[in-house]
Amino acid sequence: MENRKIKVGITHGDINGIGYEIILKTLEDPRIAEICTPIVYGSAKIAASYRKLMELPEVKFTTITSPAEATADHNYIINVVDENVTPEPGRCTPAGGSAALAALERAATDLREGAIDVLVTCPISKDAIHGDEFSFPGHTEFLQDRLNDGSDPKAMMIMAGEGLRVALVTIHESLADVTPKVTKGAVLDSIMRFNKSLIADFGIHSPRIAVLSLNPHAGDNGVIGSEDNEIVAPAVAEAYKKRVFAFGPYPADGFFGSGAYKKFDGVLAMYHDQGLIPFKLLMAERGVNYTAGLPCVRTSPDHGTAFDIAGSGQADPQSLREAIYMALDIYRNRQREAEATANPLRKQNFDRGRNE
Amino acid sequence: MENRKIKVGITHGDINGIGYEIILKTLEDPRIAEICTPIVYGSAKIAASYRKLMELPEVKFTTITSPAEATADHNYIINVVDENVTPEPGRCTPAGGSAALAALERAATDLREGAIDVLVTCPISKDAIHGDEFSFPGHTEFLQDRLNDGSDPKAMMIMAGEGLRVALVTIHESLADVTPKVTKGAVLDSIMRFNKSLIADFGIHSPRIAVLSLNPHAGDNGVIGSEDNEIVAPAVAEAYKKRVFAFGPYPADGFFGSGAYKKFDGVLAMYHDQGLIPFKLLMAERGVNYTAGLPCVRTSPDHGTAFDIAGSGQADPQSLREAIYMALDIYRNRQREAEATANPLRKQNFDRGRNE
Repeated sequence: MENRKIKVGITHGDINGIGYEIILKTLEDPRIAEICTPIVYGSAKIAASYRKLMELPEVKFTTITSPAEATADHNYIINVVDENVTPEPGRCTPAGGSAALAALERAATDLREGAIDVLVTCPISKDAIHGDEFSFPGHTEFLQDRLNDGSDPKAMMIMAGEGLRVALVTIHESLADVTPKVTKGAVLDSIMRFNKSLIADFGIHSPRIAVLSLNPHAGDNGVIGSEDNEIVAPAVAEAYKKRVFAFGPYPADGFFGSGAYKKFDGVLAMYHDQGLIPFKLLMAERGVNYTAGLPCVRTSPDHGTAFDIAGSGQADPQSLREAIYMALDIYRNRQREAEATANPLRKQNFDRGRNE
Repeated sequence: MENRKIKVGITHGDINGIGYEIILKTLEDPRIAEICTPIVYGSAKIAASYRKLMELPEVKFTTITSPAEATADHNYIINVVDENVTPEPGRCTPAGGSAALAALERAATDLREGAIDVLVTCPISKDAIHGDEFSFPGHTEFLQDRLNDGSDPKAMMIMAGEGLRVALVTIHESLADVTPKVTKGAVLDSIMRFNKSLIADFGIHSPRIAVLSLNPHAGDNGVIGSEDNEIVAPAVAEAYKKRVFAFGPYPADGFFGSGAYKKFDGVLAMYHDQGLIPFKLLMAERGVNYTAGLPCVRTSPDHGTAFDIAGSGQADPQSLREAIYMALDIYRNRQREAEATANPLRKQNFDRGRNE
């Protein structure tokens, strides 16, 4: 396995949010630039203005125009916005959205071309960034489009931290739209893609996946809805037939309350709140979002722009730090997996358990 | 306020579950019979057989036929099942259900007639108890029927423990049925009843109630469903107009993840998993179910019959213990509230803030 340092692109996100604060607080620790090469896509001038505003310790950046120039143990920055753009901390403005988009576009290009190895994105505001140039619900869909290498990648958001990994069958759906979208095909597809990512990205050999039930008490034998018996359970059984260690459906309240989640490598929830309430409760500020299923590695901290505290110095950089660590781990796991499966041995007779 | 000891009826629940184990483990501490008068509705013979099976310390019971005989600092038991009924730990049998029902019927009668002051129920199995004589979804509906004093009480389940109190707008509904049942009237009614219970039962003067959003991100201004803007928010506003400190709707994941729930006296969730996942995660084994809205006080531990560990000695009595403490607290709070509001002063001029 190659041993060169991994180049980590970090987009500044919405310049009126807490992006710069968490970037500065993370990179002020010199150990980050020792374990990887951080390249911020943003503005050296805006970084300096936030540093002064919040009286943060100095963080030295080397300004470059291309990741190829990033060769030493430094923090690097690539300017992607005009000199005259100034942040308005805490305000949701089109300028904040444009600056976020400029960083994303440039970083996605560099990532696709292999100039950087992994991408960590700071939060954007959907209200600020939406417009003709950005018609995606969020980062995930944008990157799915920009990183399309012809394989028609299908992204899957995995929230991860401290041994807990949660994926969702449906994400940003109103509650009324959840049940119609929880089909046997959707559940099975989610299990299979989750399984694939747990193996290749998280380096887990035979992942155990718990599938949560759609209805309370898993429907109590049909008394509270038939979907768990007729849709979720058959999908789990089908995945098991495909040699995936999928189990369930488990009623979600007891599953988390009893600590059963600790026995699994991944938890598949049916909808947003079912997965995110326990994840955010358990992870506090340390959770990371990982976008599985793309040709490149992208992670992000598990919080938003936090306009309400922007510029106040209260933001916690822990989730961004964890997002960088996780991107590095996943990049290495993917390399390992690729090397391990590059030249499979031909099937031998004694593989069957007896030497005929 | 009267100072006599409060008589706590405790039903044994399904005799094949962990009921006797948690009762014995709770009452083996002599301090329980010091702070209240525990009266078990069950069978002295079955209690003895479980004690032997699990090699638990001896707990002395005085067998009585009516709560009126319970006058000393003892543990009491009222036999409600035949001598020849024997438990089959871990099995779901009609005999287990019948024994549970016999205890419930007798305890409900004694509660209604004032022979006991509060009721704490051990878990029943709905599969075992269902039949011609018990056509209710659970304890709550049974007691709502049996304790009907003509006021047509409407029960509300409140899960409580360590400062967290969670109530639900819908409970045992399939996910597909939740959205149609979350009407403005239902949300407002839940807020008002929750508020009433927080005042009278939990002794909180001006409770602050957080209302969770139905959809992820509270609908993101209508992008993910319009219900939060059109149904939940107007219900909250209406409650506020009625001088109830209701706030929200708050997206549930961030609400729990950020610790915001600690700032409120009550949290109103829209559906089962939204309220019970965080409650069970936060309370671990210490949560209590309280049935608000009835003329009498009834609590229960926040777990089921646990057939899988019945008879093994692994059951944790903590939740039953907390259920007893909470029943005592609520009984006293209700007395205090009743006394405090029994003879209101006539409105005086100087109540307006100036003496005219």
